[in-house]
Amino acid sequence: MQEWPLRLSHVLDYGSTVHADTEILTWTGSGARTTTNAEIGRLAARLANGLRELGVRGDDRVATFCWNNAEHMAAYLAVPAMGAVLHPLNIRLPADHLAYSANQVADKVVLVDGTLIPALAPILPRLSTVEHVVVIGDGDAEPLAAAGKPVHRFDELTGAQPDTFDWQYDGDETDAAAICYSSGTVGLPKGVAYSHRSIWLHSMQIASAGSFGFAPATRSLVVVPMFHVMAWGMPHAAFMTGAGLLMPDRFLTPEPLAAMIAAAKPTHGAAVPSIWTGLLAYLNAHPTDTSTLKEVVVGGSACPESLMRGFDEHGIRIVHAWGMTETSPLGSIARPPAGVTGDELWRYRLSQGQIPASVQARIVAPDGSVAPRDGQTVGELEVAGPWITGRYLDSDEPDPDRFDDGWLRTGDVGTLSADGYLTLTDRAKDVIKSGGEWISSVELENHLMAHPAVLEAAVVGVPDAKWEERPLASVVLRDGASATPEELRDFLADRIPHWQLPERWTFLTEVPKTTVGKFDKKVIRRQYADGDLAVRNLKES
Amino acid sequence: MQEWPLRLSHVLDYGSTVHADTEILTWTGSGARTTTNAEIGRLAARLANGLRELGVRGDDRVATFCWNNAEHMAAYLAVPAMGAVLHPLNIRLPADHLAYSANQVADKVVLVDGTLIPALAPILPRLSTVEHVVVIGDGDAEPLAAAGKPVHRFDELTGAQPDTFDWQYDGDETDAAAICYSSGTVGLPKGVAYSHRSIWLHSMQIASAGSFGFAPATRSLVVVPMFHVMAWGMPHAAFMTGAGLLMPDRFLTPEPLAAMIAAAKPTHGAAVPSIWTGLLAYLNAHPTDTSTLKEVVVGGSACPESLMRGFDEHGIRIVHAWGMTETSPLGSIARPPAGVTGDELWRYRLSQGQIPASVQARIVAPDGSVAPRDGQTVGELEVAGPWITGRYLDSDEPDPDRFDDGWLRTGDVGTLSADGYLTLTDRAKDVIKSGGEWISSVELENHLMAHPAVLEAAVVGVPDAKWEERPLASVVLRDGASATPEELRDFLADRIPHWQLPERWTFLTEVPKTTVGKFDKKVIRRQYADGDLAVRNLKES
Repeated sequence: MQEWPLRLSHVLDYGSTVHADTEILTWTGSGARTTTNAEIGRLAARLANGLRELGVRGDDRVATFCWNNAEHMAAYLAVPAMGAVLHPLNIRLPADHLAYSANQVADKVVLVDGTLIPALAPILPRLSTVEHVVVIGDGDAEPLAAAGKPVHRFDELTGAQPDTFDWQYDGDETDAAAICYSSGTVGLPKGVAYSHRSIWLHSMQIASAGSFGFAPATRSLVVVPMFHVMAWGMPHAAFMTGAGLLMPDRFLTPEPLAAMIAAAKPTHGAAVPSIWTGLLAYLNAHPTDTSTLKEVVVGGSACPESLMRGFDEHGIRIVHAWGMTETSPLGSIARPPAGVTGDELWRYRLSQGQIPASVQARIVAPDGSVAPRDGQTVGELEVAGPWITGRYLDSDEPDPDRFDDGWLRTGDVGTLSADGYLTLTDRAKDVIKSGGEWISSVELENHLMAHPAVLEAAVVGVPDAKWEERPLASVVLRDGASATPEELRDFLADRIPHWQLPERWTFLTEVPKTTVGKFDKKVIRRQYADGDLAVRNLKES
Repeated sequence: MQEWPLRLSHVLDYGSTVHADTEILTWTGSGARTTTNAEIGRLAARLANGLRELGVRGDDRVATFCWNNAEHMAAYLAVPAMGAVLHPLNIRLPADHLAYSANQVADKVVLVDGTLIPALAPILPRLSTVEHVVVIGDGDAEPLAAAGKPVHRFDELTGAQPDTFDWQYDGDETDAAAICYSSGTVGLPKGVAYSHRSIWLHSMQIASAGSFGFAPATRSLVVVPMFHVMAWGMPHAAFMTGAGLLMPDRFLTPEPLAAMIAAAKPTHGAAVPSIWTGLLAYLNAHPTDTSTLKEVVVGGSACPESLMRGFDEHGIRIVHAWGMTETSPLGSIARPPAGVTGDELWRYRLSQGQIPASVQARIVAPDGSVAPRDGQTVGELEVAGPWITGRYLDSDEPDPDRFDDGWLRTGDVGTLSADGYLTLTDRAKDVIKSGGEWISSVELENHLMAHPAVLEAAVVGVPDAKWEERPLASVVLRDGASATPEELRDFLADRIPHWQLPERWTFLTEVPKTTVGKFDKKVIRRQYADGDLAVRNLKES
């Protein structure tokens, strides 16, 4: 077979010519701005010429600080196709983390949406390697001046440039094409480099009928940000397949999302559950024509059954998928087998989904052994494959805490069934390791929160002399409700194995939360360690 | 990203576990024999163990001489996954060509279907490198004895073997996995080696929604033989996606095909046009339940519009595709753009189709320049990509007659449109090179055969002092009909450019044909050169 490296320059060529008329729509707040793939292709060439003028050479890094829009799409294609490396900065990271990531990879140029200047400006002076800033669209650029770096207008930089560019087709397909950072809840974010090859293979998976099924008839509403795991691979997959995209820019609240669905008629969509939760409530209250939208992919966190059922009633099928920054991200997608119905169907729909052929998965049990694929044995999920990262950018070698003999340790805990479906129950750091067995904190919390008196519950592992760890149940009661630890323990006893029942109980006025609203369990662990919690121990009583 | 070679051992693992219950059905003449993917996986392991016992090591070649069936499927997976190379012998090749191909690649073992013993036996003594013969199923093995090679029964060789095997996951993904020979109409066949990587990537394309869309809901009727371009990649794609297959074994005539469609309910099918032509006539005469069958892919030669329209009336969509042994084979597939209707729709459906992102195509004009993608400029089609061969096995270097600076010269002549659709009009060897322009022999023939008096017409290029070549029209009139060269020339004059009108005309009682029924134009050229034809030259008259 020919030696033909899988380089994204071919994807740019292909999408902008064979699918020249495919549309990339960008929402403006009042309507959709249309850019054809052919126009994106010419814009990409002008951008590449402009970046060369700014001194971008070889595998220099080019950062973006942008919403999902046509100009960001052009950068997605132009930067890797010219041989440079794209680094979409996650605009939602704290300033320290943004500066850390930009400096770690040595971003040379930053493209910023005019509407995001106020967010970038305070951080810009700390981006020590950045030599040029390019502002896309309007917006007062004055706040950027303090950093003392040249500021260019995108239209001026690209306007007079040639519509063609000498794209780089040679080179190794394993060269880096793009970099994203995982936003861990603890510590600094960790950089992951995607190669031309990994993006190509992942795009082919997005095109697979059993995954997203991208094809020329698709128009996907890409709510998942382009600064978050490459927008789940959809921009490159779209150019590879002729699928069209609908980009919401900064309009991410339910009302404009509903308006753009009615006006721009997407067939497909992708976002985290919280987006769809908000949209569902809006659609239920405001009748909207969503008839073109047949399927939305949900990932990023577990999807509640109520959300799926709610969208079912609008004729929109939610398909659950699992992945992470480290996995490009498609690790699994929950399409139930043909013919299953009822509870079984829902079990499949609510799982994290089935692995594709290019993703190997295994569950490693608490004792370090590889668990059977029985859908029962709980352990940490490890994955391998051509679009799974082999290391982080902070180290030349794989960190043994995160990699296990070539496999990525995902930090997710759950089971794997014989037919390749993942069911994840916990983060590894939250699982409770009791006497060589694992107890899912999330499962205990879900059962506790089903008790009528309980508003919130958080369960963490605390040290235990005999069992290594035991669960501590922290409960917030509803206003005016009352329940004793004994009553709650009896309630649980009907629902979980006896050895998992917590002995230690504490009542809180509120569960501590992180800035993004997740239970902040490390605070509870610290309060417990410091003796700041009033704990009842049923075993001792 | 992880260094994770794309090896078919992973495909075997994946399909036989994650899609363990997927069915591979083999038609027996009276019903379907069911083998699950899990059973195929165990059978593959037993076969690999058996082949090791026969001395298959490293990249030894293992040939098959088999119909499409479950055992052939096991060999398709086992042989590459153990690190050896599969060589499906084309049972329809002449004995000389079969012996040439088997000896060229040094086949060590041949697996033969019991029903094909009579076909293999006369050739076997000439397969000089073959050390063992393995007979699948029943059948008198006595005729094989003359070759003096050990003959084994498949069931005995594999029956007592372990259900597991130490599959080879390491090694280079560019290692050869399988070999097929192109059956050129002239000269010896030419061997093409497919790599693990090329089969993997091609399988992902077969899974793409815009190509075959293989997914767990698919059950494909694989009429195209597994000894012909790897059955168009469907066996490996099936194991990669969970698609099921319906294998017709030796039952390739319309009546059993109709019976197996009604009984085994495929959703999809693939074969050359002649198969579908026969089936259509049968279905029209014998009402059959084909309601599950939604789409069939047709390739191998041009598909007549009447065939497509005929199947449309049965609710079965014919999708035209183009490829060759050298292209794995998927080069293009004719899915019309969304929204086109009427004549435009039919123009797209009747084209050879649109190239996917992994296939580069260009038209090289008669003067050697790359033609514009205008759908008008005619030239030879050249292709490149990761599943296009870079050389033939008869040479370590690319033959410059068949390769052009890394591109494969397909020998097909036609046009390429701006939106990447191929329209092929001729084989390069049949095109008529007149005064620096090309005349399509096929187009002239089609127009001539539309004349009511004409039964058959073959047009070939013959030497011309002024124009280099000019067309010679050879016409067979219908019984009792009459027409003069002048009348036929006038008929053509309304339909083609004036400069393409043939001056030279001859009437034949029958067009000479090859053994597979194609016009044998080299016979006409020789007869003309030898002065054996009575030719009228209108220019001279």
